[in-house]
Amino acid sequence: MATPEELHRGASIFRTLRIKTTNRVGVLAHVLAIVAQHGASLGDIRTVSISPLHRVRDIDMGFSDEAAVEATVAAINACGDAEVLEVRDEVLELHVGGKLVVRSRYPIRGEADLGRIYTPGVGEVARKIAADPELAAHYTIRANTVAIVSDGSAVLGLGNLGPLAALPILEGKSALLSHLVGVFGVPIALATGEPQKMAEAVAAIAPSFGLIQIEDVAAPACFEFEEALAARGVPVFHDDQHGTAAVVLGALMNATKLTGRSPERLELGCVGLGAAGNAIARMAMRWLGRPVWGADIAPEALRRLEAQGGRAATLEEVMARCDVVVATTGRARLIAPELVRPGQIIFALSNPYPEIEVSEALKAGAALATDGRATNNLLAFPGLCRGGLDCGIRRFVPEVFLAAARAIAEQAPPGMLLPPPLDPAVHRTVARAVAFAAAEAGVASRPVDEDYLLEEPRSLAHRLA
Amino acid sequence: MATPEELHRGASIFRTLRIKTTNRVGVLAHVLAIVAQHGASLGDIRTVSISPLHRVRDIDMGFSDEAAVEATVAAINACGDAEVLEVRDEVLELHVGGKLVVRSRYPIRGEADLGRIYTPGVGEVARKIAADPELAAHYTIRANTVAIVSDGSAVLGLGNLGPLAALPILEGKSALLSHLVGVFGVPIALATGEPQKMAEAVAAIAPSFGLIQIEDVAAPACFEFEEALAARGVPVFHDDQHGTAAVVLGALMNATKLTGRSPERLELGCVGLGAAGNAIARMAMRWLGRPVWGADIAPEALRRLEAQGGRAATLEEVMARCDVVVATTGRARLIAPELVRPGQIIFALSNPYPEIEVSEALKAGAALATDGRATNNLLAFPGLCRGGLDCGIRRFVPEVFLAAARAIAEQAPPGMLLPPPLDPAVHRTVARAVAFAAAEAGVASRPVDEDYLLEEPRSLAHRLA
Repeated sequence: MATPEELHRGASIFRTLRIKTTNRVGVLAHVLAIVAQHGASLGDIRTVSISPLHRVRDIDMGFSDEAAVEATVAAINACGDAEVLEVRDEVLELHVGGKLVVRSRYPIRGEADLGRIYTPGVGEVARKIAADPELAAHYTIRANTVAIVSDGSAVLGLGNLGPLAALPILEGKSALLSHLVGVFGVPIALATGEPQKMAEAVAAIAPSFGLIQIEDVAAPACFEFEEALAARGVPVFHDDQHGTAAVVLGALMNATKLTGRSPERLELGCVGLGAAGNAIARMAMRWLGRPVWGADIAPEALRRLEAQGGRAATLEEVMARCDVVVATTGRARLIAPELVRPGQIIFALSNPYPEIEVSEALKAGAALATDGRATNNLLAFPGLCRGGLDCGIRRFVPEVFLAAARAIAEQAPPGMLLPPPLDPAVHRTVARAVAFAAAEAGVASRPVDEDYLLEEPRSLAHRLA
Repeated sequence: MATPEELHRGASIFRTLRIKTTNRVGVLAHVLAIVAQHGASLGDIRTVSISPLHRVRDIDMGFSDEAAVEATVAAINACGDAEVLEVRDEVLELHVGGKLVVRSRYPIRGEADLGRIYTPGVGEVARKIAADPELAAHYTIRANTVAIVSDGSAVLGLGNLGPLAALPILEGKSALLSHLVGVFGVPIALATGEPQKMAEAVAAIAPSFGLIQIEDVAAPACFEFEEALAARGVPVFHDDQHGTAAVVLGALMNATKLTGRSPERLELGCVGLGAAGNAIARMAMRWLGRPVWGADIAPEALRRLEAQGGRAATLEEVMARCDVVVATTGRARLIAPELVRPGQIIFALSNPYPEIEVSEALKAGAALATDGRATNNLLAFPGLCRGGLDCGIRRFVPEVFLAAARAIAEQAPPGMLLPPPLDPAVHRTVARAVAFAAAEAGVASRPVDEDYLLEEPRSLAHRLA
C-alpha cells in the first residue's frame, strides 16, 4: 500500500474547492483532516468571505484522479459542517489560449509609427545588418531570444507524449524565462524525433535565436541531437542534461560541506545514466577531477560513460562503494534500505516517486538524503540563457556549466542545499558566473563588464514593460 | 535628372531634426523650403517649446543618404533664422533590442503560481493534449501563433540581404499582427535558401504554429518552397505573392468600378511575373474567369504562367492589347509614356520607383494610374492570419485569397481604391471573409459563428493585456 507521503506526491490533477463552513473554531481543521484521509495534497487556502455564521474559502488541492476529487467532495459535504460550493479547475482555465504573449514593444498609432517600425524606416536597419551581421544582436530581438525546442519524447516524467503535448511545458519555461531574467523564450515543438533531422531543422532556424535550449528530448537521441547542432556552430544546451546536472552538482557541493566531507577523496556513483544521470556523472568528474561510478540497465549507457572516462558498475556495487549516490532512474523504490551504507549521501531524484524515500534512507543510516522535489532544475536554465546571451556565447563548454553549479551552490542559505528558485537575484548571479566563465574559456563573442548584472538592469524591466 | 517626386521616394534614411527658429511668421515655411531644395521628404512636425523669441520643433525627414543629412543641416544653420540643435535617429534608436516582447501572460509570485503555470499543474494539460492533439489549439498559444519565415533573399526592394537582415522586417510584421489583429507572430529567419530544405525545416517546427506566413523569399525559390510546405500538410501563404495579390486585386476591382468598366470583357496584363506578378495574374484569372496576359524577361516565368492558364506576351503587346496593366518588375521607368493607350488603367507597383510615374501615365491618357505606395500589402496578411487561425485552416486555396480581395475592395471609401490600412475593423472584416471562405471551400477544421469578429473581441485585448 502506498504511504501517505507517496499519495501526496502522486497528485496529478489540481482543483480549487470553494468550501462554505460554519464559522466555528476547529471546523477547518476537521475539513482538512477529511481531505487528508482521501489522500489529497493541500496547496494555498484563501478566505473569500466571512459572515457571523459562515466562512467561505478557496482551497487548492492535488488529487490522483477525478474519482478522488469526487470522493473528497462527497465526504466534505457529508460531514455536516461544510459544503463544497464549487470545484474549479484553475490550472486548465489559465492554460486556455496559452500562457504567453508576443506583441509589439511600441504602439502603432499612425503612419509615422508605421514608417519607423516598418517600411520605409526598417530598410536602413536591414541594410546595416546586411553590411555587418553582428549588428543583428543590436537591432533585433535575437540577442535576447532563445528557442526552447522539444520533440516531446520525454515530457516531464510522463514519457513520449509527442510535440503538441510538449507545448505547455515549453510555454511554461518561456514564462519563467521572461519572469526571472527577461529573456524571450520561443516554444518550438518539433514534428520529428530523428536526431539529425532535428539538428538540421533547428540549425536552419538558428538565425532568429541567440541560443537554443533543448527540453524534454529522450536519451539517447538527445545526445546525438545536441552534438549535431553544436557541430553546426549553434550554441545549445540541453536543460535535462546540463541544467539538471548544474543544479544537482550545486546541491552535491553543499551536501559534502554540510556533512563535513572533502571532495578530494569522495567516491561518487550515478544510478541511472539517461540524459540527467550521464550529464551529472560527466560534470561530477570535472568537479572531482577523477572517474565516477555509473550503473544502468542499458549496456549502451555504460559504454557511453566509460568512453567519457567513467567506470561501469552494478547498482549493488555503486551502493557498496560510493560515499555519494545520485539516482535518476525513474524507478520508484529501486534502492532497498538494506543497500544504504551508514554515512552515505543519497540523492534519489526520480519524480514523483524517488528510488528511496528520504525518511527510509535516513533511517537506514544515510548522513544526508534528498529527492527530486528539492533539486528544481529551474535554478540553472534562466542564468544559462541570460549569461549565454549577454556574452554572445558561441559554444557551451563544461567550464560554463561548472561555473553555474558553483554559483548555485554558493547562494544557498546556511544549512540548505540550494537557494530559493524564484528569486531573480539568484539567477542574475548564475548569469554572471556563466558569462565570465564563457569569456574565460574563450567562447564568448562579446565582452562583459565587471559590474554586469550586479544590480537588476533597467533594460529588463524596459523590455517587458 | 531625378524629378522632385523621385527624390522624395528615394528617401532611405530617416532622421528627426530638432530645430530652433526665431518665433516669427514665415520662418518655418522658409526652413521647409530649404529642406525641399535638398530633396529631403517631410514627415511629422511636433512643437517642443515656445518662447516669446523662439520656437523649438522636432521635424521628421527622409534623406537619400548621410551626405544629404549633412548638407541639409548646414543649409538650415546658414539661413540666419534657424539652428539645428540635434539630429536624432529615432528609427535606429527604437530598433535597439528589437521591436517585440515575448513574456508570460501571468505573474509568477510564488510556488502556487509556479505549480499552475509549470510543474506539477502543467502535467495534466500535457496528458490531455497527448490524448487529444486537437486540444493543443485550446490549451496553448498555437492557435493564435504564426511563424513569419524568410531566408532574406528578397528583403523589401533591397534584394538578397540574408536571413539576419530580414529579422527587422519580420519583427515589423509581427508588431503589426499583434497591433491589428492580436495574432502572435514569431520571426523565423532561415539559414538556408534551398526550397526543399526550407520546407523541411519549417515543416519540422510547424507543431508550434497555427499557420506559416512566408515573407521576402525570392522567385522562383518561393514557389517551390511554398508548394513543398503545403504538400507536407502545413497551412501556408506567401505574403509577397498572395497577400500582395489580394490587395492589388481589391484595388483593381475598385479601379474598374471607378472607371465604369465591366470585368466581363476586361483584358488584363501583368508586366513582370515574379512572386507578386505571377500571383496577381493567377488571382486575376480566377476573378475574371479567363486568361490574362503576362510579360517577363525570364522564359521560365512565361512558361510558368502558360502552365497556369495565362498567355505569354511582350511588354509592347501587353501595353497595346490590355485595358488594365499591372507592372511589378522592379525596373524604374520601364514603361515609356508612348506605350500608354488612352483609357488604360495602369498599376505601376515597383517601389520606390514605379515603372511609370502616375503623373506621366495620366498625361499620356491613362484613365486611372497608381503606384506601389498606394497598394500597401499590409491590408491582407493580418486578416489572412486571423481568419485562417480562427477557422483552423488546413490549406490556403484560391477562393480564400479572392474572398480577402473582395473584402478589401468593399471596404474602400467612395472614390478610393483601398481602405485605410491601420483600421483594425478593416482587418476584422477581411478575417471574417477568410474564415467563411475557408469553411465554404472545406478547408476549415473548426466552425465559425455568423457573428464572428463582427465586433472587437474581448479576447484579443485580454491576450495582449
